[in-house]
Amino acid sequence: MPTPANHLTATDAAALMREGRLTASDLAEACLARIAEREPERKAWAHVSPNQVRAQAAACDANPSSGLLHGIPIGVKDVLDTRDMPTQMGSPIYAGHQPPADAAIVSLLRAAGAVILGKTVTAEFAGMAPAPTTNPLALHRTPGGSSSGSAAAVADLMVPISLGTQTGGSVLRPASYCGVVGFKPSYGRINRAGTKFAAESLDTLGWMARSVQDIALVDAALTGNDAPLSASTATPVSTLRIGVCQTYLWDAKALPETRQALQTAVEALEAAGVTVTPVALPERFGHLSVVRETLNDYERARGLASEWTHHRDRISPQLSASIERGWRIPHADLLAAQRYAEDRRRDFDDLMDDWDVLLVPCVNGEAPEGLHYAGDPSLQALWTLLHTPALGLPTHRGPNGMPVSIQLVTARHRDAELLKAGDAIWRTVLQFSPRP
Amino acid sequence: MPTPANHLTATDAAALMREGRLTASDLAEACLARIAEREPERKAWAHVSPNQVRAQAAACDANPSSGLLHGIPIGVKDVLDTRDMPTQMGSPIYAGHQPPADAAIVSLLRAAGAVILGKTVTAEFAGMAPAPTTNPLALHRTPGGSSSGSAAAVADLMVPISLGTQTGGSVLRPASYCGVVGFKPSYGRINRAGTKFAAESLDTLGWMARSVQDIALVDAALTGNDAPLSASTATPVSTLRIGVCQTYLWDAKALPETRQALQTAVEALEAAGVTVTPVALPERFGHLSVVRETLNDYERARGLASEWTHHRDRISPQLSASIERGWRIPHADLLAAQRYAEDRRRDFDDLMDDWDVLLVPCVNGEAPEGLHYAGDPSLQALWTLLHTPALGLPTHRGPNGMPVSIQLVTARHRDAELLKAGDAIWRTVLQFSPRP
Repeated sequence: MPTPANHLTATDAAALMREGRLTASDLAEACLARIAEREPERKAWAHVSPNQVRAQAAACDANPSSGLLHGIPIGVKDVLDTRDMPTQMGSPIYAGHQPPADAAIVSLLRAAGAVILGKTVTAEFAGMAPAPTTNPLALHRTPGGSSSGSAAAVADLMVPISLGTQTGGSVLRPASYCGVVGFKPSYGRINRAGTKFAAESLDTLGWMARSVQDIALVDAALTGNDAPLSASTATPVSTLRIGVCQTYLWDAKALPETRQALQTAVEALEAAGVTVTPVALPERFGHLSVVRETLNDYERARGLASEWTHHRDRISPQLSASIERGWRIPHADLLAAQRYAEDRRRDFDDLMDDWDVLLVPCVNGEAPEGLHYAGDPSLQALWTLLHTPALGLPTHRGPNGMPVSIQLVTARHRDAELLKAGDAIWRTVLQFSPRP
Repeated sequence: MPTPANHLTATDAAALMREGRLTASDLAEACLARIAEREPERKAWAHVSPNQVRAQAAACDANPSSGLLHGIPIGVKDVLDTRDMPTQMGSPIYAGHQPPADAAIVSLLRAAGAVILGKTVTAEFAGMAPAPTTNPLALHRTPGGSSSGSAAAVADLMVPISLGTQTGGSVLRPASYCGVVGFKPSYGRINRAGTKFAAESLDTLGWMARSVQDIALVDAALTGNDAPLSASTATPVSTLRIGVCQTYLWDAKALPETRQALQTAVEALEAAGVTVTPVALPERFGHLSVVRETLNDYERARGLASEWTHHRDRISPQLSASIERGWRIPHADLLAAQRYAEDRRRDFDDLMDDWDVLLVPCVNGEAPEGLHYAGDPSLQALWTLLHTPALGLPTHRGPNGMPVSIQLVTARHRDAELLKAGDAIWRTVLQFSPRP
């Protein structure tokens, strides 16, 4: 029995379509059937219209050469505008809201041939309030957030690729909790027109998939210049200069499974002949978390000023608390935070002259139980503030069998190198310690 | 006969209102009367609803302590969302478009008590296509762009303050052409939620007024931390470390009136006991213009991807040419441009450790004749790319009696210092060489 089409990675599905062995309509139907079957318990989607999906897929099948993502279904986090689907932002304030244009990223994906499968559930305005989505690997655990629907949908084989946004840890954390690959590009790599801002100096568009090749395929479609990865183009892992950095949050945040995930990765790389060198960030990096909080709260209050003025009764207590903190922050603190962030970004870029990749913890540990709390963003948020590219790879399993990712980062604008290195590192680590 | 209320600066009007000698409704009526009289030839407004304005003013009069901008009318460039007024972006694609929320800056101004007088004419998506607005000082000349309506409305005494956006020179140039004060804050100072992006790594919200005090008043209302300027709080000009920098565009761009404007300012400052030191930017600053063009074109193509796909026939030839250039730029060029810009921003911040303010040319010269071309943005665009604060002061008149501004810039995030220094410098230069 052949693999059901919704189990395929985008890269494999694209190859089958190029060979005429799979149609966009077949793939769309397989995804729609999976959603119909599993969505009632998963709650990953804010909007799916099967007829719209079928029309897009049929258009692809009628025009068999529309781009790198020809016929590939993609889920779009519901804080990104779509001109033909409501964009509700996880907020009752925007119930039924229909924007007039697609977000830039959605337009670019459509131009590359993608089928927009629907809108995925987001926490309210990409914040910290609980969303209904469950973790497909354990329904009583959080899938993480705020891109909860995007992570759950990819993990549950409903769609091969989904878009997210990260202001703290909203792509990398849910990707880890659900066991998929998560990617946050460098700040400024992907145009954000048509994104509902949470905190604009931090908000970064990212995406999730079930392989690094798929992550690179989307990056290639969006940037047009980097060839997708394949086994033959992969960087030999032994040529990489890899550092490992616990970060200053290690003692406070890293649970045993996270320590083990990092340790296992180091052992796998050393077994493959790589010297992995411990790197300590200088003391002055010790304020990244508090500075990110300042920017986050200050900017969220202003970004949602209109909603706060006119619809305060429909804003959750969690978001209200963040906004109220934001209004209390003096502007001088914003300036100090902006200066600190700019200085550390430069410092980190300089530091990475000596390394290709830094291996860092991705999450505190496994997805917590319950849906009331989407988990701690601290370990992802360091890199959001630094504007670096960050790749999360689910290489490990914790004591409850839930996935735990490692995180790879590098200097700003070195995204293409990071993806190549990440592909090689993932292959190496998985070979060393196959997932159960 | 008392001064008609629409002739008042915002600072003076606010003082009269505090003293009970002027009502918000009186001021609004004076502005509306001026608009009714002059708009047919000025074409500064995309939307004004007198009843909406009267209702806002009446609400202010019923609540006499709503903030620093209590009762002050403000014009809003029509690329900024307003929840109760159409936001048409100078494009037929958005005819009648009504956003669901106010832009962050509009919300903040309303919270400070401002009366939103209406939406000012913008060039199509804040680009280079011609807009119908005329220069109120000479109707056959351009008011500049893309914030053409905002500049004309303030110059023509229709409103004391207006908002603009600057991606190249769209605030400082029209302000100079129309003879008003223009201010572009540091990138990141003012939240951009609800702004239609032109090129998001450059787009900066700014504003125009008829005095530096009014500029500072708006800044204080938006940031909450800087006391508005007054004659008694002004920095003594003799304490300022002022450099003068012609920039590498001087030979190619600066017309005689621009050279004279700078020369006169230097003479005035020297007469006041200031040593103004020539500063040459290092050679590596010589690519600012071409790098800004790369970012501008690359980002505009992506930011308008949805409109380009679905409404190409309603995009002007000028904007289409920019978008087409943008699609042809390889992603590697974007990365190189981003890196160059980040390096030069840091370089310039470092250089400004030795100076409080740099005096630089603002425009090529007087407003050109005709409405088909809104003028050359090069001399403003250097500072947009560098993310610095920039203040344009109309201190000079050219051979046709049209205004020519000088421009003051400083390091990023030193906006409050720049406004204080600018106030002192303007007073000094105007005293030395009173405007005709």
